[in-house]
Amino acid sequence: VTGSETPAGRFATPDPDRRRRTGVPEVVFAEGKTVDQTFALLARLRHDDPGVPALATRCPPDVLAGAADEFASEEVAVDPVARTVRVGACPPARGDVVVVSAGTSDLPVAAECRETLAALGVGTREVVDVGVAGLHRLLDRLDDVARADVVVVVAGMDGVLPGVVRGLVAAPTIGVPTSVGYGVAADGRTALGTMLASCSPGVAVVNIDNGFGAAVHAASIVRGRRP
Amino acid sequence: VTGSETPAGRFATPDPDRRRRTGVPEVVFAEGKTVDQTFALLARLRHDDPGVPALATRCPPDVLAGAADEFASEEVAVDPVARTVRVGACPPARGDVVVVSAGTSDLPVAAECRETLAALGVGTREVVDVGVAGLHRLLDRLDDVARADVVVVVAGMDGVLPGVVRGLVAAPTIGVPTSVGYGVAADGRTALGTMLASCSPGVAVVNIDNGFGAAVHAASIVRGRRP
Amino acid sequence: VTGSETPAGRFATPDPDRRRRTGVPEVVFAEGKTVDQTFALLARLRHDDPGVPALATRCPPDVLAGAADEFASEEVAVDPVARTVRVGACPPARGDVVVVSAGTSDLPVAAECRETLAALGVGTREVVDVGVAGLHRLLDRLDDVARADVVVVVAGMDGVLPGVVRGLVAAPTIGVPTSVGYGVAADGRTALGTMLASCSPGVAVVNIDNGFGAAVHAASIVRGRRP
Amino acid sequence: VTGSETPAGRFATPDPDRRRRTGVPEVVFAEGKTVDQTFALLARLRHDDPGVPALATRCPPDVLAGAADEFASEEVAVDPVARTVRVGACPPARGDVVVVSAGTSDLPVAAECRETLAALGVGTREVVDVGVAGLHRLLDRLDDVARADVVVVVAGMDGVLPGVVRGLVAAPTIGVPTSVGYGVAADGRTALGTMLASCSPGVAVVNIDNGFGAAVHAASIVRGRRP
Amino acid sequence: VTGSETPAGRFATPDPDRRRRTGVPEVVFAEGKTVDQTFALLARLRHDDPGVPALATRCPPDVLAGAADEFASEEVAVDPVARTVRVGACPPARGDVVVVSAGTSDLPVAAECRETLAALGVGTREVVDVGVAGLHRLLDRLDDVARADVVVVVAGMDGVLPGVVRGLVAAPTIGVPTSVGYGVAADGRTALGTMLASCSPGVAVVNIDNGFGAAVHAASIVRGRRP
Amino acid sequence: VTGSETPAGRFATPDPDRRRRTGVPEVVFAEGKTVDQTFALLARLRHDDPGVPALATRCPPDVLAGAADEFASEEVAVDPVARTVRVGACPPARGDVVVVSAGTSDLPVAAECRETLAALGVGTREVVDVGVAGLHRLLDRLDDVARADVVVVVAGMDGVLPGVVRGLVAAPTIGVPTSVGYGVAADGRTALGTMLASCSPGVAVVNIDNGFGAAVHAASIVRGRRP
Amino acid sequence: VTGSETPAGRFATPDPDRRRRTGVPEVVFAEGKTVDQTFALLARLRHDDPGVPALATRCPPDVLAGAADEFASEEVAVDPVARTVRVGACPPARGDVVVVSAGTSDLPVAAECRETLAALGVGTREVVDVGVAGLHRLLDRLDDVARADVVVVVAGMDGVLPGVVRGLVAAPTIGVPTSVGYGVAADGRTALGTMLASCSPGVAVVNIDNGFGAAVHAASIVRGRRP
Amino acid sequence: VTGSETPAGRFATPDPDRRRRTGVPEVVFAEGKTVDQTFALLARLRHDDPGVPALATRCPPDVLAGAADEFASEEVAVDPVARTVRVGACPPARGDVVVVSAGTSDLPVAAECRETLAALGVGTREVVDVGVAGLHRLLDRLDDVARADVVVVVAGMDGVLPGVVRGLVAAPTIGVPTSVGYGVAADGRTALGTMLASCSPGVAVVNIDNGFGAAVHAASIVRGRRP
Repeated sequence: VTGSETPAGRFATPDPDRRRRTGVPEVVFAEGKTVDQTFALLARLRHDDPGVPALATRCPPDVLAGAADEFASEEVAVDPVARTVRVGACPPARGDVVVVSAGTSDLPVAAECRETLAALGVGTREVVDVGVAGLHRLLDRLDDVARADVVVVVAGMDGVLPGVVRGLVAAPTIGVPTSVGYGVAADGRTALGTMLASCSPGVAVVNIDNGFGAAVHAASIVRGRRP
Repeated sequence: VTGSETPAGRFATPDPDRRRRTGVPEVVFAEGKTVDQTFALLARLRHDDPGVPALATRCPPDVLAGAADEFASEEVAVDPVARTVRVGACPPARGDVVVVSAGTSDLPVAAECRETLAALGVGTREVVDVGVAGLHRLLDRLDDVARADVVVVVAGMDGVLPGVVRGLVAAPTIGVPTSVGYGVAADGRTALGTMLASCSPGVAVVNIDNGFGAAVHAASIVRGRRP
Repeated sequence: VTGSETPAGRFATPDPDRRRRTGVPEVVFAEGKTVDQTFALLARLRHDDPGVPALATRCPPDVLAGAADEFASEEVAVDPVARTVRVGACPPARGDVVVVSAGTSDLPVAAECRETLAALGVGTREVVDVGVAGLHRLLDRLDDVARADVVVVVAGMDGVLPGVVRGLVAAPTIGVPTSVGYGVAADGRTALGTMLASCSPGVAVVNIDNGFGAAVHAASIVRGRRP
Repeated sequence: VTGSETPAGRFATPDPDRRRRTGVPEVVFAEGKTVDQTFALLARLRHDDPGVPALATRCPPDVLAGAADEFASEEVAVDPVARTVRVGACPPARGDVVVVSAGTSDLPVAAECRETLAALGVGTREVVDVGVAGLHRLLDRLDDVARADVVVVVAGMDGVLPGVVRGLVAAPTIGVPTSVGYGVAADGRTALGTMLASCSPGVAVVNIDNGFGAAVHAASIVRGRRP
Repeated sequence: VTGSETPAGRFATPDPDRRRRTGVPEVVFAEGKTVDQTFALLARLRHDDPGVPALATRCPPDVLAGAADEFASEEVAVDPVARTVRVGACPPARGDVVVVSAGTSDLPVAAECRETLAALGVGTREVVDVGVAGLHRLLDRLDDVARADVVVVVAGMDGVLPGVVRGLVAAPTIGVPTSVGYGVAADGRTALGTMLASCSPGVAVVNIDNGFGAAVHAASIVRGRRP
Repeated sequence: VTGSETPAGRFATPDPDRRRRTGVPEVVFAEGKTVDQTFALLARLRHDDPGVPALATRCPPDVLAGAADEFASEEVAVDPVARTVRVGACPPARGDVVVVSAGTSDLPVAAECRETLAALGVGTREVVDVGVAGLHRLLDRLDDVARADVVVVVAGMDGVLPGVVRGLVAAPTIGVPTSVGYGVAADGRTALGTMLASCSPGVAVVNIDNGFGAAVHAASIVRGRRP
Repeated sequence: VTGSETPAGRFATPDPDRRRRTGVPEVVFAEGKTVDQTFALLARLRHDDPGVPALATRCPPDVLAGAADEFASEEVAVDPVARTVRVGACPPARGDVVVVSAGTSDLPVAAECRETLAALGVGTREVVDVGVAGLHRLLDRLDDVARADVVVVVAGMDGVLPGVVRGLVAAPTIGVPTSVGYGVAADGRTALGTMLASCSPGVAVVNIDNGFGAAVHAASIVRGRRP
Repeated sequence: VTGSETPAGRFATPDPDRRRRTGVPEVVFAEGKTVDQTFALLARLRHDDPGVPALATRCPPDVLAGAADEFASEEVAVDPVARTVRVGACPPARGDVVVVSAGTSDLPVAAECRETLAALGVGTREVVDVGVAGLHRLLDRLDDVARADVVVVVAGMDGVLPGVVRGLVAAPTIGVPTSVGYGVAADGRTALGTMLASCSPGVAVVNIDNGFGAAVHAASIVRGRRP
């Protein structure tokens, strides 16, 4: 029996029920896919569930450059820092997630988180460059942070910021380690370990550089909150 | 200048403002402390903030055995599986967190999570032994799981269960890897990696065996939910 | 004594008896070899054992591009996704191995497995993109998977799929971790650990990205099965 | 909602369909369970599926010592080297799996594999202490090894033996790394890496010290072979 | 030539010049030595250089229990928390090193640092239990910390405290990671990584649990300071 | 609430008080920033605190090439080996830090340390290529090394030199591991471990390749020394 | 076919030809074997090859305590520090191997090396406690070390000594890392890495704590030297 | 004191005594050096010690391409596979070292070893592509291998070959792990671990890809052998 159970030319199995089941529509992880594959998947998502925008993350330059032409009849948002492409308008925003980042180099991961939240219909604010080397920068912004529904804290190098933030606020707090740094910090594992071992209980952590995953967890929290 | 800035006999600096600031009262991490230190800290917490129970986690046998006598005038709950001691009555429970565990050996970590949630005034249910070796055990309980406010999934060995659950439900989902297993699974790092790398977006993760931290994150979510 | 025991120009020692002894002919691992070395080795294999096709794996672009011309008088199959070159016709296929892959990015490793099995005279089918983020995709295909002689499951990131599959079928199941992913999943070690620690007993595992090795193990099983 | 979805006193969810679905009945992993839990689970397995024996692996001394009395009305086989308890008679043996071990210290893992195969109704032979420090010991036994349906090779320290064996035989070969050794070999990871990276294609590998898992994979192969 | 270049019974080669050369006398590392060896080495140090006390670190219980009797004619200081034995009076203290510890469980390492500094003739103060889970505890003590000649910060788990301190003070700051914690923090490597990767430049780090080494580095700084 | 708490176009939060608080002005870490970002940050630092030069470390080639033109009205020092750009004149040098390097390949890290010290107003000397393969090279220079206020020792590969130096001198000694080497030395972790585990007590260590951090720690020591 | 290819009661396959083939007789690795197994294997070795003594390494206390009685009719040498038992007289010693150890805690590994060399008929000398914290201790003994046929250098913690020695002598030099130390040095891997990455070319390395392996390599060198 | 103890333009400290002291002249490690630095160092070595050739290892393409012109008046040997440049004629060869390599991809490391031995005046032979996947290839060449003074065995992937060889011959045997392979074998650490943990006692090991170090150790053995 040599043959294929999958129709010729198929490289993906759709999961049309996902948004109803998990609250999150399918999203295209563009890394390692060809431009054609990514555009085809975005088009299918638009077709299957026109009620929400289609999102692609970790897009290579070709995808970022070609998206506007490919989907010329739609609203397209390309964010070269976040490396995201969104096709279709964002739903109205509800909720309030603050995305805090420790340093300038962490901004791409923070941007991926922000763009994902927007596509999921969640409101966001950003607080940038408040790493603990200058703790007063954070303390000056504390009221802005503390009143959010959810706090996402993005940090590389020593990964210290999420634990410090969680020791100061009551909102659900999500740590996102980044691969920013060198030496022992080079691949983000030091920042990851710091966040998992945090003395401040209640920090929940996602994979290194995974601003997308933090956004999905934050959105699941916002969906259930008091209006 | 030889001397000490800390009053003689002091081994801890209280943080009486913590509950107001972070929503979580101080909790005694009893591992590596003497019985006397643990009891003294529990007594201080009871005195400083009588409105909530005082909790000690990871208690050695001496603490578990002696707690009832030490605090004879109070309600004391000792859970030898969870290794927790609670002094003072639980607040009324609100919210609904389901604690799912993959195997019998994961029960102590699930119990620590449940006891912490109870002390924080959060309602809990448990679903046990539904690891993916027999996937239908989970599918049979899916409705029970899906209707919770928050899902905590405790799993050792391959750590597969949280990702499978998150692919089936929309509630905020927290993975707790455990150190159950041998060989590559011996210290829980394989389970931790699996959860962080999960194909199902939105799983947030805490440290290995950290049922306490999962409970604190879950409680922070419940506090903000619609009644 | 300065000199060489190996005849001038020789860079390899043939093992002409290997197919009789182990059931597997020599195969050229083209990575790190020059184009000339790879073509010379393929030609030698064709000459020494014309009864089976000669196969090269992990071929760089030069080898893929030049193979058809180099062996113009033979049947040549070049698969740029699998990065394989086969010279000579496949033997008639017997047996039924299903190659299941978790995501689109795992397809190259699945393709290497399929091409190797074909060259070894084993029949294959493929089931693609059925990762556990959408478990129903797998359950919908379960009958197709369960009736195979051997199941090969290719998965990166969390590496969850082989254990889930083995919990649902009785056939010998082989897990192939891939280096697909980022952060803790970046080099495939997380997927490898998950498969080795699987709660579903009986999953056997090969090296990361080693679709070739999985094929050889699967073929050794098929050779001994009931017709 | 504080309560439990699992009936009081329940610590496990049965999977009565597992043998029909996967070819392997449930087996009790006794490590980390109480003696009472292990005996209760064995009794339940005997009751639910009397057609096959009930097996417990990695039994602590109390379980090994008390099993004969606990199940006095049944055939009980206690193997203190393998650390297994079997309740109920083995099915008639079919097939021929040879379990090769590299050194004397690897015998417990080999014994766990052999006892599991016996409980699953598979015939076994053993070849012991044929590590590559004295290669001729293996070459002298090669015919015995080569004629088996499946070869399981158990080795600690450098983990070299499975690759050497697979280079000499055509049967499906499974490597089981053990935690025997010290220094870089102390936890079995060196042996595991060696087997996964083997130059001899077709070695499939299971977790460190996992004689049980190797047996289940071997049994799944034997079930499908020509009689 | 079978024999020994070292006089019979000798197990150590003295380095009498060390104090003059490096500013630090020899110190006995008692771990892994017999009680007799440790006492003999202390006696030799007292004999060779009576101007400074003799110190033994990481002493097992037998050494701690027997030291007072062994050196009955001398001033002996035994610290069971620090696990140190000092024979001979401390030199007059000069300088001002503050030893800050993050949690109660870090006190043994802080105590080893303090006892070593005292034996080297350096003045110390202590600030305890000011981990970042309650940042205000540290901010309340900041003036005490900032006026020291050198700051030693001892922290396990996430190892966050040294970087936070260094971002607030100008004094030379030394981080000492401890092996306090569990899961990813179990052996102190997470705390070590955090300190090395600190966003606050200028934190210098010593080995895990090495309060002794931090003291020696601090003393070398104090020796050169303005009086 | 979709919006940003940070003014449009802002990518950094200044910390103008840092020099007064910690003795170290802000420094631009140029890796991962655009040329425009780095130049903007340098200009801001010059504006906010004209009393000290502005420094950028780990500058990519574009920054090194363009700095002189960008700041044409100021004294600009570009060091392509150190990969630093300094804008503004150095303060008068005080103190005496010797920077010792083990091999020619360690010179970039030594140069970063030297340039940072100069910008901080600290005097430096260098001793190069005195690795322990030829120990007499170091012994010949020992007097030069021993009379320094602080010794910084930069070494890759085996990282042996700092411990050997600290066994010969009394000055505060800082080890800087570098990523020079291959095989087990490839990423600098072997050198880091050697320095942390040094038999010579009192070596303090900074992150791999972190000449900047060593300079900051050395400067904090020099600030407090006797004139 | 359930049965065993190995005669009943057999747990080892002898390799009587090993000494002729490799120059080294079989040696009993006693760790993980029962007392009876170790004594039986020693007796067999004495019987099979009476021309050389039988040696057991890494003997547990029972073996050390019982050996003299078990082999009462023979010369028996028990070394509790080396944890070796030798049965039968040593061959006449030839050659000159010097075993250098860095610290007192490294003596057991040095002793295992010395006892193995004696059993193999190789002459030894020892130089102890000459770690680089006091380099002059080594320089004082350099002539003793330099005139040896082979130098074995045993060191834990930072593992620095072998590279320093090899930079000073011309003889073949073997590094033996030990598991002495704590923190990053706890399991010997730091010392191992240092030796492998040594700047002094020509250091060859064996496994952690493997004094036996170093002795065998040294003996193979001595066998071929000029008399 | 800002200045430099090293004369202007100097980037290296010569060690002219090294050959007399250690038997090995200085060798230029060209990786990470500029072409000019490498040529300058080679010229200095030629000048300081004209009695032996000057050798550079791990040369980048520029050095390989330009060496013949740079040293036009001398005998120059450039080996692009070994990446070595030798300036000056080799001394007469004595001794007999056989360099065995497991696979074609290991040839560059074997070549570096051979070129170094030639420059040191040691005779070499080579045996290639005899990995254990086809064990008979090695057995066929065993007499060639066994009669050598020293055996160097170069192997990547599983690193099995050195242990197998040492179990068959009596000559001093050196294992050189290579970084050849993928997955768990990708950086050579699996091969390194296998060699260190070898069941065949007496294998000594050098760093990954370090053909040079193996040659230096082999040469130190040959120098002392019987003529």
